[in-house]
Amino acid sequence: MTPKKDTAILLIHCPDQPGLVRAIAQFLADNGGNILHFDQHVDAQENVFFTRVEWQMEGFALSRGELPNVFGALALKFAMRWALHFSADPHRVAILCSKESHCLYDLLARQESGDLPMEVPLIISNHEILRPAAERFGIPFHHVPVTKEGKAEAEARQVELIEAAGAETIVLARYMQILSEGLVARYPGRVINIHHSFLPAFPGARPYHSAFQRGVKIIGATSHYVTADLDEGPIIEQDVIRVSHKLAVEDFVRNGRDLEKVVLSRALRWHLERKILSYNNKTVVFA
Amino acid sequence: MTPKKDTAILLIHCPDQPGLVRAIAQFLADNGGNILHFDQHVDAQENVFFTRVEWQMEGFALSRGELPNVFGALALKFAMRWALHFSADPHRVAILCSKESHCLYDLLARQESGDLPMEVPLIISNHEILRPAAERFGIPFHHVPVTKEGKAEAEARQVELIEAAGAETIVLARYMQILSEGLVARYPGRVINIHHSFLPAFPGARPYHSAFQRGVKIIGATSHYVTADLDEGPIIEQDVIRVSHKLAVEDFVRNGRDLEKVVLSRALRWHLERKILSYNNKTVVFA
Amino acid sequence: MTPKKDTAILLIHCPDQPGLVRAIAQFLADNGGNILHFDQHVDAQENVFFTRVEWQMEGFALSRGELPNVFGALALKFAMRWALHFSADPHRVAILCSKESHCLYDLLARQESGDLPMEVPLIISNHEILRPAAERFGIPFHHVPVTKEGKAEAEARQVELIEAAGAETIVLARYMQILSEGLVARYPGRVINIHHSFLPAFPGARPYHSAFQRGVKIIGATSHYVTADLDEGPIIEQDVIRVSHKLAVEDFVRNGRDLEKVVLSRALRWHLERKILSYNNKTVVFA
Amino acid sequence: MTPKKDTAILLIHCPDQPGLVRAIAQFLADNGGNILHFDQHVDAQENVFFTRVEWQMEGFALSRGELPNVFGALALKFAMRWALHFSADPHRVAILCSKESHCLYDLLARQESGDLPMEVPLIISNHEILRPAAERFGIPFHHVPVTKEGKAEAEARQVELIEAAGAETIVLARYMQILSEGLVARYPGRVINIHHSFLPAFPGARPYHSAFQRGVKIIGATSHYVTADLDEGPIIEQDVIRVSHKLAVEDFVRNGRDLEKVVLSRALRWHLERKILSYNNKTVVFA
Repeated sequence: MTPKKDTAILLIHCPDQPGLVRAIAQFLADNGGNILHFDQHVDAQENVFFTRVEWQMEGFALSRGELPNVFGALALKFAMRWALHFSADPHRVAILCSKESHCLYDLLARQESGDLPMEVPLIISNHEILRPAAERFGIPFHHVPVTKEGKAEAEARQVELIEAAGAETIVLARYMQILSEGLVARYPGRVINIHHSFLPAFPGARPYHSAFQRGVKIIGATSHYVTADLDEGPIIEQDVIRVSHKLAVEDFVRNGRDLEKVVLSRALRWHLERKILSYNNKTVVFA
Repeated sequence: MTPKKDTAILLIHCPDQPGLVRAIAQFLADNGGNILHFDQHVDAQENVFFTRVEWQMEGFALSRGELPNVFGALALKFAMRWALHFSADPHRVAILCSKESHCLYDLLARQESGDLPMEVPLIISNHEILRPAAERFGIPFHHVPVTKEGKAEAEARQVELIEAAGAETIVLARYMQILSEGLVARYPGRVINIHHSFLPAFPGARPYHSAFQRGVKIIGATSHYVTADLDEGPIIEQDVIRVSHKLAVEDFVRNGRDLEKVVLSRALRWHLERKILSYNNKTVVFA
Repeated sequence: MTPKKDTAILLIHCPDQPGLVRAIAQFLADNGGNILHFDQHVDAQENVFFTRVEWQMEGFALSRGELPNVFGALALKFAMRWALHFSADPHRVAILCSKESHCLYDLLARQESGDLPMEVPLIISNHEILRPAAERFGIPFHHVPVTKEGKAEAEARQVELIEAAGAETIVLARYMQILSEGLVARYPGRVINIHHSFLPAFPGARPYHSAFQRGVKIIGATSHYVTADLDEGPIIEQDVIRVSHKLAVEDFVRNGRDLEKVVLSRALRWHLERKILSYNNKTVVFA
Repeated sequence: MTPKKDTAILLIHCPDQPGLVRAIAQFLADNGGNILHFDQHVDAQENVFFTRVEWQMEGFALSRGELPNVFGALALKFAMRWALHFSADPHRVAILCSKESHCLYDLLARQESGDLPMEVPLIISNHEILRPAAERFGIPFHHVPVTKEGKAEAEARQVELIEAAGAETIVLARYMQILSEGLVARYPGRVINIHHSFLPAFPGARPYHSAFQRGVKIIGATSHYVTADLDEGPIIEQDVIRVSHKLAVEDFVRNGRDLEKVVLSRALRWHLERKILSYNNKTVVFA
C-alpha cells in the first residue's frame, strides 16, 4: 500500500463565466501550489462550470486552517459552491449489508490490500448471517434488526453507531432495506448504493427476475447516491454483461454479482478520491 | 459473396419430453440428411423444448414438396410448432425509413457486399429526403407520406407495395412512425425495428434525450420484433456504449447511431439465417 | 447453495460423420436417460464433431459402473475420445498463489457462498504472506518456497500435497512461478492459469507495464490451460477493460485485478461444470 | 449538419512546471478569449505537460495572423511544442482503399450526413473495384495500381494527387499496401490506418486467421497513426468483440468489419477535432 499523498482537493461548481480558470490557477500559483490535477467541465446547456483541482500541500503557503478563509473570498466573487478535502485525512466508511456476502467480502479484501483508501470502523446488518465475514477481517459487526414497526428505532441505532464510529460515508453493500427520508436527508451525497439492474430499467425489488421475464440480452448494475426517491439518485457508475436464452434467472443473479462488486467498488473509489460532483441529479466524475 | 448454401432449416418448439432429440435425429438419419447444425434449448421453467436443425438438401431422400407432409406426422406426435425454410430461397426485405440515413446506408452496403443474404426490392419512406441514397444503390424508392388522417390509406399503400414486391420481412430502419395494430398483425414475427435505447429503459420518443436527462453512464440500442405494444416486442439483440458527463445530447445521438447500425444488422442477419425462435415475448437466438 | 444435481456428463469429440447425434440420442433414449443439455459443435475446417450431453442419473438404466463399458462400445465404433463425469462427485481444487490476494479471496468467497461448486482442500504458496487469508477461511495453507536450485524439490513437495489432498484441478491464482514441463505433463488439462494480459499480446512478465509502454487503449486478462509453452495453452476465457492516457501503470495493475478475478472464476466454473473440451490447442466451451 | 464553429484550438506539450495553466489561462483572458474547453494531462513518469485549449475567435483580440507571433513568445518561455488550428477551416481528407468497401462506404455516408467534419476531395485505390462506390457519392476516384517494381512510381503519383487535392490527412480505409518510409515521413501524424486486430496482437497480414488459429475469445481492431514501423505507430483507438468456437474464420472477418468501421471513424473524428497529441509513440486523446 502506497503512503497517502499529502494533497488538497477543491471541488467547485458555479455559473460559467470567462476568467474562472485563470482565477483559480492564479490563486494556486500565488500561493506556491504545485498542481497535480486540474479537471474542468462546462455544462453548456445549464451554463455551469465544474472543476476539480488537486495540488500538493507541501510548500503551499496557506495552512489547512487559512485555506478556507482565503479561498472563500475568491469563491464568493464567482458564486462558487465548493468543498475542500485533504487526501491525508482518513476516510471512514460504514458498510451496511443484509445476507449476501459478495460485495462485503470484495470491499473488505480491497480495504485490506490498500486498493480502496478507506477505513471501515463498523459493519451494520439487519441479519446475523454475515457476522463471521466481518469477524474474519476483524471489523466490529452490529446486528440491528429492522421491522416494520421498529424501523425508526433501528435507524436511530444505526445513526448512533455511525456517528460514534466517525463514519463519513455509508455504503449499502446489497443492504435490502429502504432508508427513511429522514436518514437519507441526514447524509446528503454520502450514502452510496449498488442496485442490481441497469437503471432506470428495473428499479425496485427483484430486478433480475424482471430482466429475465422481459427477455433482455444484457443485464447491468448501477451505483448511485441515495436520495429520497428510491433508485433515482445521481448515477455514479454502471456496467453491463451479456446474457442469453441459455441462462436461467439464477444465472442472471450469479453473473450479476460480478457486476455489482466491480461497479460498487469503482463508484466508491471515485467518491473516496473526491472525484465526483453532483448537480441536477447527475454526476460529473473526473475519473 | 459466397454462393448460397442448399440447406433446409427446421425451427421447432414443443412441450419438452424425453425422446425428442432422438426422434428428430432419427427422422433425418433415416432420410439421409447430413446435419450441419443441431441446436437445442430447454426452457426448464416453461418446460418447452426449442430446436433448430439445418441439413444439406443434396442427397436428402425427401423433396421440398414431400418434406412438410412427412415431417408433419412426426410433428403431430410431439405437438410441435414448426417452420421449414430453404436457404437457397431468396429472402426479400422491404426497408422503411424516414430521414436518418445511417441505418439505410449500412443495410444497402451490407446487401451489396453480400454481408447480408437478402434482396431489397423496395424502400418506402414517409419523406423524400433519402431518395438519393436509394437511387445510388439502384433500389426503387417509394414516398408514402403519413398524416394523422391519412394513416390508414398510407398503410394500405405500403401493404400494396410490399406485397407486389414479394417482401417477406420488413425492416424499420429508423422509421419514425408507429405501425397500426392491423399492420403489425398482418406480419407477425416479420417486422424488425431498431429502437435507440437500451430497452426497457426509455421506450417511446426521444430516448437519447431522456437518457441524457437521467444521467446514465451507458446508452444502448435494441432490435426487436414489432408487436402491438410499442417497443415491447421480443428483443432480438442489444448493445451498449459508455457515455460521460463530457458528452452533450448531440453526442449521445451521434454515438448511438453506431450502435443502431450494428445492432439492427446483427438482428436482421440472425432473422435471415432463420436462427430466431420467438416464445412468450422472448427470443431464443441460436447464434 | 443449491444441492448438487445427480447427473452424468459425457464430453466427446471424434471425426465428424452422419449419424453421430442419432447414435448418442439413441443410446440415451434406450436406457431411459432424460437429457438436460445436449450441445454439439462441428469444426468444419478440421472435420471434428464435439458434443456435451448431460442427463439425469435418476431412472437411468445403467449404473455408474456399467456406463463406461456399455458406452465404450459405441465410442469405439465412431472413434470417439470421451470423458465421463458425475455432477454429484466432489471436485477438489488446489489453489497455488504467491503474494497478491485478490484472486485468492475471490475464489474463497465464491467457494463459501456456493457460487463455485468445488472443495478447496489446500492452498500452496511460495510466500508466507497469504497465510492469514487462508486461515480466515479455515483452509490448510502450505508454504513451499521455490528457489532456482530447489525448484525440483519444491515441485515434488507440491505434488505430494496435491495428491494427498485428492485435488483433481489446480488453479494458479496469480502464482508467479513457471511450472516445469514435468509438472505440467502430470496434470494435462487440469491446471488453469490467469494471465494478466489479453493474450497473445504481452505474454510473460510484467504485461501491464508492457501494455502501458505500448500505449494500448484496452487491457485484458486471459485464463487458459497450462501447457509446456508459457502462456500459450488453450484459452478458456478473456475479458477486457478500457484504459486511457489518464491512467498510470499502477492504475492498469489495479483495474486489471478486477478482470483477473472475474475471468479466472468464469473459466474455473466452466471447468468445474465440465463444459470445456480442448482440441488443437483451442477450447470449445459449451457455456 | 450544424454550421462549423469559429474557434481556435491550441495543442501543446512541454516539460511540466508550475505556472503553466496560469500562463495559458492568463494569455487567453488578457485577450478576451472565451474558453470552451481546457483539457490538461501530466505524464508524471515523463514529466510532460499536455494541454488542449479551445476558445471562441469571436471577440478575441488577436487575429489569426497575430496569434502565432504573440503566443510564440509565451511558448518559447516554457519550451512548448505547439500546433494551432481553426475549426472553421476545411479539413480535406484523402481516402486510400483496396477492395473492401465497408470502411469506405461508412466514411462516405458519415461525410455526407455531416457526422464527420471533413471534405473528401479524392479516393485512391490500387484496384478498380470500388470506383462505383466513389462515383455514387460523386467523389473523384483514381486508380493507381501498385506493383513491386512500380511502387516508387505509384507513390509519386499518389503524392501528386494528394497535393493537388490539398488533402491534409490521409486515411487508409483497409488499404492493403505498405507505405514506403519516404511516404510515411512526408506526412508525420497525418496518416491514419485501421488494422484488423487488437494490436500488438497479430500485426501484419491475415490477423483474423491468426486469431482464429490461436483460439482467442475476443477479437479487435486498432486505429493508429502510421509510422515507419509496420503496425507499430501510436494507437488512437481500439475496440473488441466476443467470438466463440461457433464462429468460422469467415465470421471473424465479417464481425470484425463492424469493429473496423467504428474504430476508424472514432479515431478520425478525434483527429479532425484536433483532440489528439502524440508523444513517445503513444497518444493523449482529449475525447
